[in-house]
Amino acid sequence: MGQVIMHNVVSLDGFIADQNDDVGPLHEWYFSGDTPITPPNNQRPDGPEKFDHSGAGVDFKVSGASAEYVGPMWEGIGASIMGRRLFDLVNGWEGQPPAGDHVVVVSHRPKPDGWHPEASYHFVDDVTTAVATAKELAGDRTVIVNAGVVGGQALAAGLVDEVAMDVVPVVFGSGRRYFGDIDRQHLLDDPHVVIQGDRVLHLRFTVRR
Amino acid sequence: MGQVIMHNVVSLDGFIADQNDDVGPLHEWYFSGDTPITPPNNQRPDGPEKFDHSGAGVDFKVSGASAEYVGPMWEGIGASIMGRRLFDLVNGWEGQPPAGDHVVVVSHRPKPDGWHPEASYHFVDDVTTAVATAKELAGDRTVIVNAGVVGGQALAAGLVDEVAMDVVPVVFGSGRRYFGDIDRQHLLDDPHVVIQGDRVLHLRFTVRR
Repeated sequence: MGQVIMHNVVSLDGFIADQNDDVGPLHEWYFSGDTPITPPNNQRPDGPEKFDHSGAGVDFKVSGASAEYVGPMWEGIGASIMGRRLFDLVNGWEGQPPAGDHVVVVSHRPKPDGWHPEASYHFVDDVTTAVATAKELAGDRTVIVNAGVVGGQALAAGLVDEVAMDVVPVVFGSGRRYFGDIDRQHLLDDPHVVIQGDRVLHLRFTVRR
Repeated sequence: MGQVIMHNVVSLDGFIADQNDDVGPLHEWYFSGDTPITPPNNQRPDGPEKFDHSGAGVDFKVSGASAEYVGPMWEGIGASIMGRRLFDLVNGWEGQPPAGDHVVVVSHRPKPDGWHPEASYHFVDDVTTAVATAKELAGDRTVIVNAGVVGGQALAAGLVDEVAMDVVPVVFGSGRRYFGDIDRQHLLDDPHVVIQGDRVLHLRFTVRR
């Protein structure tokens, strides 16, 4: 089976967006480098026009160091898991995730009626089912769990293999937390990835279980 | 003048201790390596017996990488600034700070009557006065501002030159925050120090002003 990796871009004080879901300067490094990278599914003629809810489009240009790290990570994604908040914010990328073929949405509400019936989007109401579903869909490829409330639940439930943080040198003060509502201590190994990009530090930790 | 450096050990989610001021595994790296280091003032015959409020004593043994970073940092300290909470927790290290000759305490209450009159401890009631006082006492040496509520106030007031985070791979979930009650975004430069020790990642950022 593939690994389950919790991932997001994060401020120095642990926030993935402000209280209004604005990512502020957290995503600038995706567009400020000199090395173009393209999410796997954007390479298809029918690929999505947008990657994230910043609406900044698909012209990703990162530093060379970030490209070497992010490119293979994107290519390895089989399925991703997100909460209903992010799904609603980006309207599920209109059925075309930037990477990976499958998306699992954790939500107490069902898939919107008639929403992109062709897309492999699966709505489940708890994180344990989400991870099981995503792993089955991903096969030996990676499952990405979007950090935040759902990611924190997955980590707390012992379902996360690695924590990947793209740390941006900004202090937010408040906002949406990378680890969501997690309420007890969890130990991780020392990072096995420490890569300094331009306006981002890529860190990746194995979770101790 | 010397630099003003905000410093503390911190969890991956930005906490310097739990709600009960327990540092948990955050200080383990100080004692789990193979390279002994001694805080400058412990080298004196009358030096303090304790470094921090973990009460773990002075037998610091860190990784070689951490020793090369921490040793010169300790040696460069002229004065440090702390809040009244930490002062009370450690009783001001009984008048003998582990590094530096001078301590400035931010507190609305005065120095306890008769408390170590020989010690260069200065009680002021706001962070601006604290930084000015510490800089004058430190001369061309470094001023360390303990991260937490007081450190966050100093950063918000534009009084911090660098942010030094010793990041331990543990998630806390809740507790005392490294950046205290800071309530708006602050940009920092990319880290000019990225050193992986054993159970700690040393990061240091210049504050953009």
